[in-house]
Amino acid sequence: MGHAAQETVVLSGHIIDSLILAKVLDTILMMGGTFDLEEVSIGKTRNESSRARIVVKAGSAKLLAEILRAVQPHGASLEGESDCQTRAAAADGVLPDDFYATTHLPTQVRLAGEWIDVTGIEMDLGIVVEGNRSCARALPMADVRRGDAVVIGRAGIRVLPLQRPQERDVFSFMESQVSAERPHGHIISDVAKRMEALRQGHRAGKPGCKVLVAGGPAIIHAGGREALTWLIEEGFIHVLFCGNALPAHDMEADLYGTSLGYGLSAGRVVPHGHEHHLRTINRIRGIGSIEKAVESGVIKQGIMAACVRRGVHMVMAGTIRDDGPLPGVITDSVAAQAAMRKAIPGVGLALLVASTLHAVATGNLLPATIPTVCVDVNPAVPTKLSDRGSFQAVGLVMDAASFLRDIARELGAQA
Amino acid sequence: MGHAAQETVVLSGHIIDSLILAKVLDTILMMGGTFDLEEVSIGKTRNESSRARIVVKAGSAKLLAEILRAVQPHGASLEGESDCQTRAAAADGVLPDDFYATTHLPTQVRLAGEWIDVTGIEMDLGIVVEGNRSCARALPMADVRRGDAVVIGRAGIRVLPLQRPQERDVFSFMESQVSAERPHGHIISDVAKRMEALRQGHRAGKPGCKVLVAGGPAIIHAGGREALTWLIEEGFIHVLFCGNALPAHDMEADLYGTSLGYGLSAGRVVPHGHEHHLRTINRIRGIGSIEKAVESGVIKQGIMAACVRRGVHMVMAGTIRDDGPLPGVITDSVAAQAAMRKAIPGVGLALLVASTLHAVATGNLLPATIPTVCVDVNPAVPTKLSDRGSFQAVGLVMDAASFLRDIARELGAQA
Amino acid sequence: MGHAAQETVVLSGHIIDSLILAKVLDTILMMGGTFDLEEVSIGKTRNESSRARIVVKAGSAKLLAEILRAVQPHGASLEGESDCQTRAAAADGVLPDDFYATTHLPTQVRLAGEWIDVTGIEMDLGIVVEGNRSCARALPMADVRRGDAVVIGRAGIRVLPLQRPQERDVFSFMESQVSAERPHGHIISDVAKRMEALRQGHRAGKPGCKVLVAGGPAIIHAGGREALTWLIEEGFIHVLFCGNALPAHDMEADLYGTSLGYGLSAGRVVPHGHEHHLRTINRIRGIGSIEKAVESGVIKQGIMAACVRRGVHMVMAGTIRDDGPLPGVITDSVAAQAAMRKAIPGVGLALLVASTLHAVATGNLLPATIPTVCVDVNPAVPTKLSDRGSFQAVGLVMDAASFLRDIARELGAQA
Amino acid sequence: MGHAAQETVVLSGHIIDSLILAKVLDTILMMGGTFDLEEVSIGKTRNESSRARIVVKAGSAKLLAEILRAVQPHGASLEGESDCQTRAAAADGVLPDDFYATTHLPTQVRLAGEWIDVTGIEMDLGIVVEGNRSCARALPMADVRRGDAVVIGRAGIRVLPLQRPQERDVFSFMESQVSAERPHGHIISDVAKRMEALRQGHRAGKPGCKVLVAGGPAIIHAGGREALTWLIEEGFIHVLFCGNALPAHDMEADLYGTSLGYGLSAGRVVPHGHEHHLRTINRIRGIGSIEKAVESGVIKQGIMAACVRRGVHMVMAGTIRDDGPLPGVITDSVAAQAAMRKAIPGVGLALLVASTLHAVATGNLLPATIPTVCVDVNPAVPTKLSDRGSFQAVGLVMDAASFLRDIARELGAQA
Repeated sequence: MGHAAQETVVLSGHIIDSLILAKVLDTILMMGGTFDLEEVSIGKTRNESSRARIVVKAGSAKLLAEILRAVQPHGASLEGESDCQTRAAAADGVLPDDFYATTHLPTQVRLAGEWIDVTGIEMDLGIVVEGNRSCARALPMADVRRGDAVVIGRAGIRVLPLQRPQERDVFSFMESQVSAERPHGHIISDVAKRMEALRQGHRAGKPGCKVLVAGGPAIIHAGGREALTWLIEEGFIHVLFCGNALPAHDMEADLYGTSLGYGLSAGRVVPHGHEHHLRTINRIRGIGSIEKAVESGVIKQGIMAACVRRGVHMVMAGTIRDDGPLPGVITDSVAAQAAMRKAIPGVGLALLVASTLHAVATGNLLPATIPTVCVDVNPAVPTKLSDRGSFQAVGLVMDAASFLRDIARELGAQA
Repeated sequence: MGHAAQETVVLSGHIIDSLILAKVLDTILMMGGTFDLEEVSIGKTRNESSRARIVVKAGSAKLLAEILRAVQPHGASLEGESDCQTRAAAADGVLPDDFYATTHLPTQVRLAGEWIDVTGIEMDLGIVVEGNRSCARALPMADVRRGDAVVIGRAGIRVLPLQRPQERDVFSFMESQVSAERPHGHIISDVAKRMEALRQGHRAGKPGCKVLVAGGPAIIHAGGREALTWLIEEGFIHVLFCGNALPAHDMEADLYGTSLGYGLSAGRVVPHGHEHHLRTINRIRGIGSIEKAVESGVIKQGIMAACVRRGVHMVMAGTIRDDGPLPGVITDSVAAQAAMRKAIPGVGLALLVASTLHAVATGNLLPATIPTVCVDVNPAVPTKLSDRGSFQAVGLVMDAASFLRDIARELGAQA
Repeated sequence: MGHAAQETVVLSGHIIDSLILAKVLDTILMMGGTFDLEEVSIGKTRNESSRARIVVKAGSAKLLAEILRAVQPHGASLEGESDCQTRAAAADGVLPDDFYATTHLPTQVRLAGEWIDVTGIEMDLGIVVEGNRSCARALPMADVRRGDAVVIGRAGIRVLPLQRPQERDVFSFMESQVSAERPHGHIISDVAKRMEALRQGHRAGKPGCKVLVAGGPAIIHAGGREALTWLIEEGFIHVLFCGNALPAHDMEADLYGTSLGYGLSAGRVVPHGHEHHLRTINRIRGIGSIEKAVESGVIKQGIMAACVRRGVHMVMAGTIRDDGPLPGVITDSVAAQAAMRKAIPGVGLALLVASTLHAVATGNLLPATIPTVCVDVNPAVPTKLSDRGSFQAVGLVMDAASFLRDIARELGAQA
Repeated sequence: MGHAAQETVVLSGHIIDSLILAKVLDTILMMGGTFDLEEVSIGKTRNESSRARIVVKAGSAKLLAEILRAVQPHGASLEGESDCQTRAAAADGVLPDDFYATTHLPTQVRLAGEWIDVTGIEMDLGIVVEGNRSCARALPMADVRRGDAVVIGRAGIRVLPLQRPQERDVFSFMESQVSAERPHGHIISDVAKRMEALRQGHRAGKPGCKVLVAGGPAIIHAGGREALTWLIEEGFIHVLFCGNALPAHDMEADLYGTSLGYGLSAGRVVPHGHEHHLRTINRIRGIGSIEKAVESGVIKQGIMAACVRRGVHMVMAGTIRDDGPLPGVITDSVAAQAAMRKAIPGVGLALLVASTLHAVATGNLLPATIPTVCVDVNPAVPTKLSDRGSFQAVGLVMDAASFLRDIARELGAQA
């Protein structure tokens, strides 16, 4: 088999100790191509950057294109770059056929010879060029409007591989850990240290210091309500993503002392206690909003009370399994996604706790630069998240309540 | 401790071999009450019904009320029943404070001295009395309108415990099985027999013979696409509940031969293949609908093609993790729930496959009388479903593809 | 189909609120038999016992025998009992063909017209009659000796269904709870209360007050070492079943501060740290025994140190995945089982923590009368245990370290 | 912090596309050292090998030693190698304190200036030099004898990093896949192709062509008995590692048509059917051996019958959860490990199916050069195995029966 097609790509940065060069070469071979390495210069110290020119060869132009598409997210950009190309969207909500689909890594496009940062980067979006080709932003498919200049093809686009972070904590390692059999202590301790630092930063008005929690109702079933409430009250949490169930169970606990009919303190199953859940939702619907329920003193304690009092930015998203739902729940999934997206700028740490749906949905919206911890008793959830392939996603197989209580204890909560 | 309060309840039907009497007595004791059994008459054969009068005693009126609320779902109705009471809803979407919350069991209310069936029964709804107090139907909280006559309290309401089904198949046993270590063969064989019989019934125009599948995208990832397509084409499936991902992956497989970037036949991971997923959704958005994509020949094979051609009733519900979404996906969760609810009458068997969200959401909408199978590789999902506590929910811990292929083979598919 | 065969069985005791009558009738029907209920007398209060005579009918003598075998473990004994029958074992380690296989419920055999308790009851053993037919004990297959009088058939044997315990704690309910989504708090609190009471009893010399822990190495990986050490030092644990790995990791933590190469305090993975594990084992082998290692001051702290100092009865059983193994590990599985069996009399509570192998092996040895808690992050393990079908096995889906630390905190440990 | 200590190491081979260089640099940084890269020469094509000299620097001699220990398993050997050092073992079963602990990678020691292959390599053993320092073999701790010349320290030892295999099948990729959501089809197809090729090789008398199955009883519970029997009968399996339960359930299925009391064909749970299990074991004990039971016609079909007839090399290892056990089960875990170890030479593919214990135990014994597939419905098991970190361990989250049936179908079995 001859090599019908070849192209030269360039890699630079910390391509050795970030495994980037290795991954690129591996991908080429795996997909059936071959390569010549030219001009490899490797930084001799930790701080010097490295650079490699790689001639990629493939048996057909089609295969070559596929390989180039596959290595591009690792930062391999075509040598001799030209400006990026755009095409006008033909209809609202529909991208051109050959639109460029983003990764969650920092991305630049070349416009008039200059590399411009794409704003609002997140996975699986299109890129729209605006302002007379002076700026570019990532855009969900549904938000594109007829006539928008959408980036197409692969030329003039480059992805910046993540640098390994300076701190030598749990977020700086190569492999995120998801095993139930590994010790959690140091991970929790590192996360707590980040939270402490972020709280200080946030109080000092520093940007990028918000902490996001995306959580499911198992937090409450399993006994993590007090810990999460404490963390909110102490100013450690600034954004909360959840569904209908977490707030409903939280307020049920306040009104009835149960969660889905399970007594939380007295500790007895109350048969048909699911009623409490419904009555709670119905009651808040009658009052009109969670805010009013807290302010009027109907809801006195717990996560919702703390969120309202501390001004936490809450996004509640509805699903087809909801009862009610509670007032404030955004039932339209596109609108809810947009509200979540809007709440992300400024987030410096994301904790995804005990909710597959919210973990994956939030994971999709987070740029790779935001350190992320995914906690679930089911190992499949952290695995799913860590498949995203960045240094920053750390998985933890443990129950939500134990995680939150350990974090709270590290940060100074009693008992 | 004296007995400040007592009340007599009556149980009748197959209360012995359905464990009903035992559960009622157990609940009374567990909650701190005591009982005297009066006039127990036990049917001497399988077909004779039994009857028991139980004097329930408790230390306080409050505890007695709680106990009566807890035993009522088992069919224990108060002796000397009066008509049910109603109260007008004070606002749209809000039930009166003491509304009666339904179970998923057949339920009757007493109106003008007569026991009337409540229509549209499902779990966790209110009951509205209509037609000049001649009929009653179950209603979601959000659908109640100001002034509706909502049933309140517990008097004049009775729940009919399920009879054990006549067939001696997997649906007729006391405990649904969820262990990964139990043999699946006979369960699959029983399910297949039901499906065969239901297809015959459905073809003959018999009511209650539809088969519902609620499924997640793992069906496709894991290799169950061909089997499900075959089942639809052969007329075994009549209703399909899914999200955005299952149809997107199905059509991606048709257009690109991949599923989330995993090659399905050639069998290689295509890096950054998530693009195919996005391009598929974008393409169908451009075409305008799945139906048009099938009819115009763009989509040629697979689950969607089969559904369109066989007229399967599809409800696609959106979530916050969706890309796109596809045209036809109902993004509002309340509207999607309503569409699912509308599709359930006529269903005689429900298969909940590889989707926690759809399994739980569909489970909530199904009356206890519809035989249900929940299949998931994660044992937590069937456990969640079988917590519903009816004879009919059978759990199966196995991967979705293997299940569907085994079912298809039992029903005559090749390979 | 006529009824070729019938037999009358008698049930007595708390057969209603223990579900026993219901289960017996259900089993008869499920297996294809029918029944007539004769002379049902039901205790009118909690303390009165009930009694039922059931005529069991089946289409063949073989089926009837199978049904009788199936209902017997629920306490259904044949009317008109005769003495039990025995046959001499033909060879060492081999029971007669039709030997009676025990359940884990209290069992009696009739000898010379009198019902005699079978000693040493546990699941799946034979029964040997001794002392000139004056006593009977349960015996593992491998321990039977040629000529032993082994009980055969079903006549003259009765199983006593468990009474529901008097305490209204987590052990007294009908269904053991295994869901990860249910609150753990009250279960842990009930277990802690039992442990407190048992410690008092044990200190006062009361029999049946030992607490058994059977545990796996995940206790240490996940950070539960300090809590378990504290519980042992404070006198809450009296018997420990484990393998080679738990003591090895415990002593590795003492010698090197790591567990399988994971730093426990500094919190960093030490590559190839598995070496520490090997060096620990090798070192203890050199010293000769764990006891000597503790007494000589080589091992200063942790679970092993506490066990040696507090005189905890340890049984360490080897497996094919062991390195070493440590001195004291019983490598022969039959000998290890015998050592475990010997340690069980006197146990009043069993905690099976984070080890499928030890949980199942210990579960097999425990009579149904010993309250048992099974803790594992994998829901399949508690499910397996609770399949045993007694009131006493409570499942808890949570990680071992969190469980032990919560228990220790309930019992007064700091932090 | 100055650099109190430094040392130069050399890496050579396919150190780029095997990620080896990246991992070594990462490890150095992670542990707190720094490095200078000197003389990096990178092979320009797939077939040329690369070479790097790395100056490793650390703040203390102790840290330097730890880092060198950590990078050595990746193939980093000290420049200017001298011969390896040995010390005589002081007692039977105890290695010298500073013994070298093996990895599962091909290893050489330098003796009299020459690099000699260490035979019998597997993880976590010592190395003994024999034959007047002409050869070296890996030895379990328990097998070392007083006076044996055991390799100590790190000098004169090198580990050869694995080459990526030539075939482009599932075993040649960087990351083993364990997700339940990835397609299994191509993995199964690749495994089947290997098995076909190995059968041909084995029939032709080629070495290294045996296929090993290490399996648990879930194979039988879940319905994989026929498929495994077929594979054995057709000559695809040559070595079987199992416990007491798999053969007992297999023969129970033959004698009674049940597995742990679950009917396999008729498909009904037979209450207390655990008896069948016991009676099966007792019967085989009476006969004396599985071989005799097959040869005498008592056992007619199934896995054991096929193994006996086809001369499969079986190792049955006992555990503390066994009933009986069956004759032939090796109850001593050290002896069983030795028997397994003896059966491994000649194995060219290992399938670890539905048994955590056997998967881990076998995984410990396998050199990294043997392609290995680990199949379990619980994702934690393949994760545990793939933590071993070689190219060759492929994880598959699916149930055992489906796996075996799919493999059998790929290899030509009917239905």
